[in-house]
Amino acid sequence: MNSDNYFKNRRTIRQYNDEAIPSEKLYSMLAAATHAPTTGNMQLYSVVVTEDISMKQKLSPAHFNQPSVMSAAAVLTFCADFNRFIKWCEARNAQPGFDNFQAWMWAVEDTMIFAQQFVTIAEMNGFGTCYLGTTTYNAPQISEILELPRYVVPITTVTVGYPATEGVVSDRLPIDAIVHKEIYSDYDNRRIDDIFSEKEAREDSAKFISENGKETLAQVFTDVRYPKKDNEYFSKIYLEFIKGKGF
Amino acid sequence: MNSDNYFKNRRTIRQYNDEAIPSEKLYSMLAAATHAPTTGNMQLYSVVVTEDISMKQKLSPAHFNQPSVMSAAAVLTFCADFNRFIKWCEARNAQPGFDNFQAWMWAVEDTMIFAQQFVTIAEMNGFGTCYLGTTTYNAPQISEILELPRYVVPITTVTVGYPATEGVVSDRLPIDAIVHKEIYSDYDNRRIDDIFSEKEAREDSAKFISENGKETLAQVFTDVRYPKKDNEYFSKIYLEFIKGKGF
Repeated sequence: MNSDNYFKNRRTIRQYNDEAIPSEKLYSMLAAATHAPTTGNMQLYSVVVTEDISMKQKLSPAHFNQPSVMSAAAVLTFCADFNRFIKWCEARNAQPGFDNFQAWMWAVEDTMIFAQQFVTIAEMNGFGTCYLGTTTYNAPQISEILELPRYVVPITTVTVGYPATEGVVSDRLPIDAIVHKEIYSDYDNRRIDDIFSEKEAREDSAKFISENGKETLAQVFTDVRYPKKDNEYFSKIYLEFIKGKGF
Repeated sequence: MNSDNYFKNRRTIRQYNDEAIPSEKLYSMLAAATHAPTTGNMQLYSVVVTEDISMKQKLSPAHFNQPSVMSAAAVLTFCADFNRFIKWCEARNAQPGFDNFQAWMWAVEDTMIFAQQFVTIAEMNGFGTCYLGTTTYNAPQISEILELPRYVVPITTVTVGYPATEGVVSDRLPIDAIVHKEIYSDYDNRRIDDIFSEKEAREDSAKFISENGKETLAQVFTDVRYPKKDNEYFSKIYLEFIKGKGF
């Protein structure tokens, strides 16, 4: 297998067959994912597995009823977790000092590495996956449903199941737009035009613009998908929530 | 290939042979990694590639002179980047609202997914990699060396090269310690003992404890590796830095 080509053709899958994942298989994939790198080998994460239909129904509104939640064999809520590590410290006569932003960042990074390693492994096993960014919007509701204690914060959610669709390969910016050699090479208007021209020329971009009554594709992002007032509203909620959890 | 077993045996590599990675190969692996999931297909990241020896020498102290920086064929600084996207919005008559904590979290998550996908791909291509957690400690110095503009923040660094050592498979907690079914199952002292017993019984744990003159392995983490006052000191610096970058 040429791994570069394999990864260039990966697809997000949002619809799944009505079939459970054998528990042993799910645990094996999660166990393999824990071997991804982690800060100081502290493993500052937990994952809550939702398979029960009534629990999916409770989670669904927190994800704005995205259909992949109810369709998935399992909904995996990946959480930054300092609770387990702090409890260990306290049981071992050690004074933890992890109620701060650095500790928060380590746990977020650990959690994302673990989640992405799981996604890679699940996809290699033929499963379909989809991240739900709504997790940072409605973390307080998710936390209540999953009974998350202090020092445990939902970071992202992955739905997983046997694919019911083929999915499509998403477009990406040219790699030169992402990579900087030795120092950061800032973008002038001409380079911005070059970088985004292919995306803007796509048929689905024209469709997004007209469906939303906008002039440009960028306006679909700023006015419809991620408006400033929503971002600020959910920022305030998430920040207060994280502080409330002890970070 | 059984992918679960492959990933269970992955190893971090901190020493590399003195051989450059062909530029085409590095770009191909990075391009493949961009196909990992990203928030709303915004690709809120950049990577700065350091191969020049004088630039490595500048970066090295910011990573507390960890030897893998100078040994690596390439040092990759993965940055949360809203600069490119915001410049695009501004060039397209769209009003960006991304100077807030939600936008920061999307960019951090995108960056970590991209970094971890790169690590997976590089390892599958036979390269060795190592994350440097020091990136969030000394972000201001790194930012200055790499000339990062507003809305661009270093999140993590990966050193990469042809392996000069075999590395070792790190121990991990039992998977039952990480996975929660339906709701979070909190840890009592007995379960903490069970979860950490294998780690505490390891020879290298005994060595860490005696070398550092401590009573317990947990104290090595709280008193030596991650003391509260250091965590708080670097938290303040990083938080102010992120705010200064516009988030």
